[in-house]
Amino acid sequence: MNFVLPNASRPTADIPHYSPLGNECALFETAWVRQLPLLLKGPTGCGKTRFVSHMAARLGLPLSTVSCHDDLAAADLTGRYLLKGGDTVWVDGPLTRAVREGGVCYLDEIVEARKDVAVILHPLTDDRRMLPLERTGEMLEAPPGFMLVVSYNPGYQNLLKSLKPSTRQRFVAIEFDFLPKAQEIAVVSAESGLAEAQVARLVDLAARLRALKGHDLEEGVSTRLLVYCASLVDAGMPAKEAVRAAMIEPLTDEPDVRAALLEVAGSLIA
Amino acid sequence: MNFVLPNASRPTADIPHYSPLGNECALFETAWVRQLPLLLKGPTGCGKTRFVSHMAARLGLPLSTVSCHDDLAAADLTGRYLLKGGDTVWVDGPLTRAVREGGVCYLDEIVEARKDVAVILHPLTDDRRMLPLERTGEMLEAPPGFMLVVSYNPGYQNLLKSLKPSTRQRFVAIEFDFLPKAQEIAVVSAESGLAEAQVARLVDLAARLRALKGHDLEEGVSTRLLVYCASLVDAGMPAKEAVRAAMIEPLTDEPDVRAALLEVAGSLIA
Amino acid sequence: MNFVLPNASRPTADIPHYSPLGNECALFETAWVRQLPLLLKGPTGCGKTRFVSHMAARLGLPLSTVSCHDDLAAADLTGRYLLKGGDTVWVDGPLTRAVREGGVCYLDEIVEARKDVAVILHPLTDDRRMLPLERTGEMLEAPPGFMLVVSYNPGYQNLLKSLKPSTRQRFVAIEFDFLPKAQEIAVVSAESGLAEAQVARLVDLAARLRALKGHDLEEGVSTRLLVYCASLVDAGMPAKEAVRAAMIEPLTDEPDVRAALLEVAGSLIA
Amino acid sequence: MNFVLPNASRPTADIPHYSPLGNECALFETAWVRQLPLLLKGPTGCGKTRFVSHMAARLGLPLSTVSCHDDLAAADLTGRYLLKGGDTVWVDGPLTRAVREGGVCYLDEIVEARKDVAVILHPLTDDRRMLPLERTGEMLEAPPGFMLVVSYNPGYQNLLKSLKPSTRQRFVAIEFDFLPKAQEIAVVSAESGLAEAQVARLVDLAARLRALKGHDLEEGVSTRLLVYCASLVDAGMPAKEAVRAAMIEPLTDEPDVRAALLEVAGSLIA
Amino acid sequence: MNFVLPNASRPTADIPHYSPLGNECALFETAWVRQLPLLLKGPTGCGKTRFVSHMAARLGLPLSTVSCHDDLAAADLTGRYLLKGGDTVWVDGPLTRAVREGGVCYLDEIVEARKDVAVILHPLTDDRRMLPLERTGEMLEAPPGFMLVVSYNPGYQNLLKSLKPSTRQRFVAIEFDFLPKAQEIAVVSAESGLAEAQVARLVDLAARLRALKGHDLEEGVSTRLLVYCASLVDAGMPAKEAVRAAMIEPLTDEPDVRAALLEVAGSLIA
Amino acid sequence: MNFVLPNASRPTADIPHYSPLGNECALFETAWVRQLPLLLKGPTGCGKTRFVSHMAARLGLPLSTVSCHDDLAAADLTGRYLLKGGDTVWVDGPLTRAVREGGVCYLDEIVEARKDVAVILHPLTDDRRMLPLERTGEMLEAPPGFMLVVSYNPGYQNLLKSLKPSTRQRFVAIEFDFLPKAQEIAVVSAESGLAEAQVARLVDLAARLRALKGHDLEEGVSTRLLVYCASLVDAGMPAKEAVRAAMIEPLTDEPDVRAALLEVAGSLIA
Repeated sequence: MNFVLPNASRPTADIPHYSPLGNECALFETAWVRQLPLLLKGPTGCGKTRFVSHMAARLGLPLSTVSCHDDLAAADLTGRYLLKGGDTVWVDGPLTRAVREGGVCYLDEIVEARKDVAVILHPLTDDRRMLPLERTGEMLEAPPGFMLVVSYNPGYQNLLKSLKPSTRQRFVAIEFDFLPKAQEIAVVSAESGLAEAQVARLVDLAARLRALKGHDLEEGVSTRLLVYCASLVDAGMPAKEAVRAAMIEPLTDEPDVRAALLEVAGSLIA
Repeated sequence: MNFVLPNASRPTADIPHYSPLGNECALFETAWVRQLPLLLKGPTGCGKTRFVSHMAARLGLPLSTVSCHDDLAAADLTGRYLLKGGDTVWVDGPLTRAVREGGVCYLDEIVEARKDVAVILHPLTDDRRMLPLERTGEMLEAPPGFMLVVSYNPGYQNLLKSLKPSTRQRFVAIEFDFLPKAQEIAVVSAESGLAEAQVARLVDLAARLRALKGHDLEEGVSTRLLVYCASLVDAGMPAKEAVRAAMIEPLTDEPDVRAALLEVAGSLIA
Repeated sequence: MNFVLPNASRPTADIPHYSPLGNECALFETAWVRQLPLLLKGPTGCGKTRFVSHMAARLGLPLSTVSCHDDLAAADLTGRYLLKGGDTVWVDGPLTRAVREGGVCYLDEIVEARKDVAVILHPLTDDRRMLPLERTGEMLEAPPGFMLVVSYNPGYQNLLKSLKPSTRQRFVAIEFDFLPKAQEIAVVSAESGLAEAQVARLVDLAARLRALKGHDLEEGVSTRLLVYCASLVDAGMPAKEAVRAAMIEPLTDEPDVRAALLEVAGSLIA
Repeated sequence: MNFVLPNASRPTADIPHYSPLGNECALFETAWVRQLPLLLKGPTGCGKTRFVSHMAARLGLPLSTVSCHDDLAAADLTGRYLLKGGDTVWVDGPLTRAVREGGVCYLDEIVEARKDVAVILHPLTDDRRMLPLERTGEMLEAPPGFMLVVSYNPGYQNLLKSLKPSTRQRFVAIEFDFLPKAQEIAVVSAESGLAEAQVARLVDLAARLRALKGHDLEEGVSTRLLVYCASLVDAGMPAKEAVRAAMIEPLTDEPDVRAALLEVAGSLIA
Repeated sequence: MNFVLPNASRPTADIPHYSPLGNECALFETAWVRQLPLLLKGPTGCGKTRFVSHMAARLGLPLSTVSCHDDLAAADLTGRYLLKGGDTVWVDGPLTRAVREGGVCYLDEIVEARKDVAVILHPLTDDRRMLPLERTGEMLEAPPGFMLVVSYNPGYQNLLKSLKPSTRQRFVAIEFDFLPKAQEIAVVSAESGLAEAQVARLVDLAARLRALKGHDLEEGVSTRLLVYCASLVDAGMPAKEAVRAAMIEPLTDEPDVRAALLEVAGSLIA
Repeated sequence: MNFVLPNASRPTADIPHYSPLGNECALFETAWVRQLPLLLKGPTGCGKTRFVSHMAARLGLPLSTVSCHDDLAAADLTGRYLLKGGDTVWVDGPLTRAVREGGVCYLDEIVEARKDVAVILHPLTDDRRMLPLERTGEMLEAPPGFMLVVSYNPGYQNLLKSLKPSTRQRFVAIEFDFLPKAQEIAVVSAESGLAEAQVARLVDLAARLRALKGHDLEEGVSTRLLVYCASLVDAGMPAKEAVRAAMIEPLTDEPDVRAALLEVAGSLIA
């Protein structure tokens, strides 16, 4: 749950920086050693994707990421027949490639995908660790070096879009949340270049806005938007304008809500 | 939030005129420098598309515009396989071309597109700035010269058609609105050729009609319709007829509402 | 809002007759000169299609008409790739042909079409006058000789089928209605060959039936059905039978409503 | 509204027998002469299809019949591109063939078809009499020898399945109903071979069962089922068993309704 | 409504045994002679499919059976174009083959099929006995040796899944039900090999469970499940376990209902 | 209803271990001998899939497993035409291969599949034991060595997703549930390597959490999650952290429910 520091301060050039907040790195490593699939839960922009990049690099594993969406079908992950020179030839999808070659396969926002995607993960996430390719008749066995990681945001999970218990219960799960204040200030300052003192005021404002989640706002301000805002200020834009463009307009279109947020912001940012 | 002046008065032949009303030009430029994606919000016909054309030309960037709609899928943006000479060959979509070549890619009315479109924008709008082409297995990294701009109209955003927080929070956002009176008169006069004194009456009428939005009307009169109306008057059509054809009939089909609007118009336009 | 007279009385052989009732011809011409797109609104069978044919011929413009329906997609208008000799070749749709060659492109019952159709009209109906062909990567600029005309019938417009304000506000609009009595008698007599005295009784009946619209009937009797009815009478069919077949059975299937209409008809037609 | 007599009594071998009950034959002929399209309305199995066969043969016109259904699209009527020898070649649909070659094209149960079907009939059913083939860019003009006839059953027309006024008002319409008693006895006897005296009891029963329509039954017994029943009796089956198999089981699955119908039947048929 | 006896007792090796309970065999034969289509109605597993096999073999007719389902379209029955050697060639479906070659075509659970299936049966089930192949332009006439039989289960017919009157009224219909006790005991004993005395207790239990239909159970125990149960007992499984596995677990998943059924079973089966 | 022991203790290397709890092995064998299809019902992760693997190996039968999902159609099981070298060639699906070659075909979570799947199983699960391939016109007869096994989880069966009685009543059925305490401790210890004393506390916790099913939880903790949890503890992770990651986070996203579960866990696990 952390953001990368500027390149200069990275321990090694190839590993995206991630400062562990809890036991999430140990949990990832244990799951890796014990060959258990992993489920990451948490709000928008809190660092789930970064965490996976960090761990994959740290463990020296290739990483293949798929952003899931409404129209992503099982065949987009496993592969499909394409027409080449008059013949239909099979082309592996990203999941099949990862199972053949090993490494971390990360399915981001898994609940967005079509239902058949969850089910093809079943034989891959029990003790069989198999990926059946029905179209080709192949039955792939995942090598020890293969690990499946999926994520989703419980915040706007609805009845139509949720993981079935038979899928959920195949994963070890980690809940992510926003960083505590001091750590978030450090991260935003490092990412944007803006001095920590100036960032602190923005983080205070974010805390105020996040407290409104569920009342007037669907989601709180993400660390990403904080970085955007600090970045605009660092580039010379007045703080008030930067806050409006990066921390308020992206959150709501309701005139009343916006007016309320601007008032909150006005009391904290000159 | 402004309309182009006639060609003669353009500062340079290649840059569509746009007279900045607020900080939107500075904000666009800062977002460009800091490589942040931009979200434009605002009502129909208030100049969002023109603003993007202006800024792209001013910064010397190629501009590629995609009008989104209900059936626009991710593949329409990223590309697809087509059959050529018996083989399937990959053909880049407009977003892929823009990522390969740099420049501004503008997705107009993004909420109209299918859900998979929003999600392919995710890796492109966080610090990775990547466009994964799952079908070809390519992972494109956006060059520094690439900028993504999207727009939508919150006015008729509904439950089925809205940006998810995980998408919204990836953009710096600007809210657009209609021009203040004096500026709108100048723009409409310049665009239509009609004298400012005559335009003023039409702009007064537009203000009256915009005040009815949410009561009898779904949307207020756009600056575009004002230009249409002034253009008809300038071509010799009686003002009353022009107002009906360009400012009233396009707004409503309800006989009662139309009668009310005609009465409002009749009191202002002889 | 008028029907064609028999060929003999046409001023020139090539221009479908249309006797203007209001300012609609002037409005069409002004819109043509000023390059503004046009929206025609009005009930079934009141002459919208005929009006467009008349104006296109009068201005010496080629006319291309597309009847829109539930399954009409953008690609049906812009074009699509077809397989020829093993290759996929692009074939222009009617809208693309009209933009390339100029002339009037008339989209009848536009609200019936799929949503993506309305949106491809957007860049064509603002000051850009462009038709982007995403599939081929072309960006066509409409020549001065191109004009877009669309129509729809507000009578049975529903929540799912309506023009969004962002589309409506791109058109100058004309409202059509049925002809006044004397003019309708002249038109029906000319079209059917039946003497005006006999037609007059049918037009009186039509007025009575139109008054029931919204109560028992979804739509009033169209001028077209009046012409059908007069045509049957002129061919020797008893007026009572012709009225039932051409003016009552096409309006309703409800036994009660039909009985009521027959009673109304019986009191006027011997 | 009549059934064919046995071959022996047909006036000419090639014309399916039809004894006119009202003015329907005259109306068909007048519509044919005046080139007006025709709409036939009426319940299941009352003879609409037979009437069209009769009139087409009587006027010496080729007849092409299409039974419409939920998945029938415009392309099924107009034609489509098929792959032949590596090329796509256009193959006319039945409507296009009829327009090219003339004759009667009969679309049975038109409201079952997809919405795009109704709309392609529009230019064919106004004074233009054109069939535009958007896919090929052709614009066919119907020859004088072409006539369009459509039918539907208002009995189970619902909100989703109805003809729009803009379609209905393009047709002269005839309402069909069951035959009066004496005529129905003659027809059923002629079709089944059973003596009129025996048929009379079945027709009396049918009248009793038809009176229940709308209460317990969705539709009354058709003349076709009467012919089935008489045919079974003529083949030696007891009348009671034939009535159950051909006049009661096809009408309902509800035990209560069936018991009531059997009781009605038992009181009339020994 | 009967089950086949063991092969040894079959009159001829090729005719599946069927002991007629009512007039169903005579009705089938009469329908065959008079060329009338047949509709079989009745609950799950009561012998409809067996009856058709029996009658087809008895009359010496080839039998072609199609199990209908949600995705079965008209083209699955009539045929479709397939790509062979670069050309599209027409391949007959099972209905078309039966119409060309004669014999019984049996469409099992017709209401499950898509709506277009019912409608293609219309011209085949009236006096025309035609199968129009719209895609090829052929119009096949069924030979005298062709007979159409369809079945469905009214038990779970719902609003979306029902035969329209215009389809139902094209068939002579037979209602099937479970066998009376003595006959069911004979059949189950013959099919399973279990002595009639032991089977009798199971049939008694089935009667008790069937009486619960509509209250706690959607459907009663089928004769098929009785055969399963007797078969398990005959193989040495304790009756109580066999009853649970073959007569209770297949009926319900509700713990309360299962407990109630087990109690009923416990009181009858030691 | 049991989990595999470590490889070392397996009786033979090729048979996945399964310690029978009730009569399920005898029932499977009897169904196999009597050629009856089998339906397995039970909650997530209770060992249904393992049981099938065990029995297939024990009986020396090849096993082919298909995980069903929303988009699994009949053609995915039976086969489909693919384009090869310009021709379409038929490729068998997994069900067709199993019917041709014999062995167990296991369809996991059958209710997830599309409706047409259930229906193609009908002729295969009555006394005909046939698989009709409509597309190729073949009619395959299952050899004596073929057995069909299907499973589903009644726990989240809903109105849209259920087996129709006509399908259910074609199977002998077994209800599965979680193991009793002593057996579950042995299995989890064997699978994870963690000492039984430590596992016992986790199994106690699982019992507490399973008791909440239906109140706060959709499903209870599966044996699989218990194995995950014990595996993390065995790898050195503190029990409290392992419980949260493997037994609580996978069950719920609701903050209140999670807090309650953590409290329950805290009282049992130090």
